[in-house]
Amino acid sequence: MKISAAEVYRSVALIRCQSPVVHNITNYVVMNNTANALLAIGASPVMAHAEEEVEEMLNLASALVINIGTLSERWINAMFKAARQARKKGIPVILDPVGAGATSYRTKTSRDLINGEHPSIIRGNASEIMALYDDKSKTKGVDSAASAEAALDIAGRVSEIHKCVVCVSGETDYIVDKEKILKIKNGHPLMSRVTGLGCTASALCGAFAAVEKSAFAATAYAMAVMGIAGEMAAEVAAGPGSLQTHFLDDLYGLSEDDISRRLKIED
Amino acid sequence: MKISAAEVYRSVALIRCQSPVVHNITNYVVMNNTANALLAIGASPVMAHAEEEVEEMLNLASALVINIGTLSERWINAMFKAARQARKKGIPVILDPVGAGATSYRTKTSRDLINGEHPSIIRGNASEIMALYDDKSKTKGVDSAASAEAALDIAGRVSEIHKCVVCVSGETDYIVDKEKILKIKNGHPLMSRVTGLGCTASALCGAFAAVEKSAFAATAYAMAVMGIAGEMAAEVAAGPGSLQTHFLDDLYGLSEDDISRRLKIED
Amino acid sequence: MKISAAEVYRSVALIRCQSPVVHNITNYVVMNNTANALLAIGASPVMAHAEEEVEEMLNLASALVINIGTLSERWINAMFKAARQARKKGIPVILDPVGAGATSYRTKTSRDLINGEHPSIIRGNASEIMALYDDKSKTKGVDSAASAEAALDIAGRVSEIHKCVVCVSGETDYIVDKEKILKIKNGHPLMSRVTGLGCTASALCGAFAAVEKSAFAATAYAMAVMGIAGEMAAEVAAGPGSLQTHFLDDLYGLSEDDISRRLKIED
Repeated sequence: MKISAAEVYRSVALIRCQSPVVHNITNYVVMNNTANALLAIGASPVMAHAEEEVEEMLNLASALVINIGTLSERWINAMFKAARQARKKGIPVILDPVGAGATSYRTKTSRDLINGEHPSIIRGNASEIMALYDDKSKTKGVDSAASAEAALDIAGRVSEIHKCVVCVSGETDYIVDKEKILKIKNGHPLMSRVTGLGCTASALCGAFAAVEKSAFAATAYAMAVMGIAGEMAAEVAAGPGSLQTHFLDDLYGLSEDDISRRLKIED
Repeated sequence: MKISAAEVYRSVALIRCQSPVVHNITNYVVMNNTANALLAIGASPVMAHAEEEVEEMLNLASALVINIGTLSERWINAMFKAARQARKKGIPVILDPVGAGATSYRTKTSRDLINGEHPSIIRGNASEIMALYDDKSKTKGVDSAASAEAALDIAGRVSEIHKCVVCVSGETDYIVDKEKILKIKNGHPLMSRVTGLGCTASALCGAFAAVEKSAFAATAYAMAVMGIAGEMAAEVAAGPGSLQTHFLDDLYGLSEDDISRRLKIED
Repeated sequence: MKISAAEVYRSVALIRCQSPVVHNITNYVVMNNTANALLAIGASPVMAHAEEEVEEMLNLASALVINIGTLSERWINAMFKAARQARKKGIPVILDPVGAGATSYRTKTSRDLINGEHPSIIRGNASEIMALYDDKSKTKGVDSAASAEAALDIAGRVSEIHKCVVCVSGETDYIVDKEKILKIKNGHPLMSRVTGLGCTASALCGAFAAVEKSAFAATAYAMAVMGIAGEMAAEVAAGPGSLQTHFLDDLYGLSEDDISRRLKIED
């Protein structure tokens, strides 16, 4: 399966035109960047986590992004409530299982969300994805030393069982839908020196899933745009500080030409 | 009613000289930017939300800014406690009813704070302000599609009933005090692509209210400075990422000349 | 006691090579910057505060940084749990008593953590350090007007009693270990206009303590690197917005030459 630069750009244009509301229940560390990335690409972020209001707030949203980066009991309750409401409304749920495998609390919460609430898209690094299925792997915090390739088998199984798209992100991003695999080779190593760019990728999955019917296409477009804006930023950045600034500027200004010149995709 | 560039600048100079402590109970998304904006203009931000300490912390403060952007039960309790203490001390309370109208939880909390604690200044976008009085409007998340003009009637009533200044911000910012209305036409559309600049405006209202007796003047000065620094930043920014960076630099370096060349005010 | 530029750089190189996991329980305002600073210097930040997981997460870590900037009951419990686990594992605990002296809640929490959990390193401004011992001082929020020199006596006593290194930071940073005192005169006044650079300094203490046996050396290296990157950034920054960006870039690119040209140390 191939995707073209024109398709990616058409989806960016849809986001810019429709400005879909993306509801995020995400971690404290990245709330600001992910809201900014969603605004930069053209979406309307909402960040709300109170049990008292998540269901009502979801009525305004076209996608729900759940990120377990800084958990607590009440937030978990809100995640479940929100996910249930999203399913009822028929809008896509994106799960970022940050740090799954690092603690049993995170592993359990991720698995419970997957088993109970059936997200449309799951995006994580190799060790996070492996933790969704396999107790034998252990992550080194939220970064991952596990090889992406080794996680692909797990990704395929999770995708099969839970009927969802799984993205294993890393130097190469793998978008997995049962047997279908798409590889995106955009991005830059300096991106790993900025906190929350993985979380940003998941938030962008929400923006694309809000305007695309296919969760597979939405994930591929999001990861392509993420990698392209990231490498454009890294090429002119003096370090991780200016990378973050350029990244938002580049997301905002991203043109069809940028995408067609840079898109590195393989199936 | 008119305000002059000299008056605005005099107030900026007061903030820089007195470095007033502005106590913020604000949302997770914008804590960092609003603290940075307060530091850039010359104030001393304090961010504290624990019920156990808000009253004591307020003893150091010259203004209190309450922003309901990410609510929960304990934070609401702290907001009421802090507002009560601020009134007892006689320092101004600024309320930012983020997302009022989007959920009944936010609408109710905003109204309860207004009815019970009588803020000096309320700043919101058109649909947030309309939600303070009228159940018939519904916001699209925290952004607003409601026309600012339509919110002016509500702003006047809220101002009249609660004896406070109401600012309806948008392309034009309206500062309303009963029948008095001042329009500020500074700012730039790119500012809406950076998260939390509305919240930053409310925080700046706190800084100006800390050094000015008139809540009306303080709000006008804050919105003018906000718009001027924002448009200066937008004119040289490549996108929303660099806008945020330049904005803080421009707030920090803001001169009387910048203000007098740019101030666009109408009554 | 002297430290050399070569020693400081050797330690930076160790962090870059080992990429130690630094576990942070820190305040909402600075989570993003401190994670970014740790990534920029080469460490692997983990931010986790849930009582349910802090102990397990600590098994991955080489240092624990506790920052009391935005307290609440559950976070305090997590701080104690984490500190206990860190001691059990034998990894260094760094305490940043943000706002100690401003409220009794913060003063008490800081003292309880010191008395009960014996951090290896305590870093604060003059009034925060004075509050650890002396009820007679009162801070002006989280900024400090107390003279650093006046805090040195308290720092020496705290260091003596609790067998830890105390850093009193300010225009000059004093690293105190019982009678030993080292002065670092790097840094730039503009740094005080960026929120959370004090918290960043404490986080960097965690990174250096993770790779150095001597808590005294680790603290000195961290404060030197902090001040050097800060002054490099300030020299080219147009204001506090660009300072933050350059600071991360400069931390990332810091060379032995930068350190040896700039290190200003006195004993």
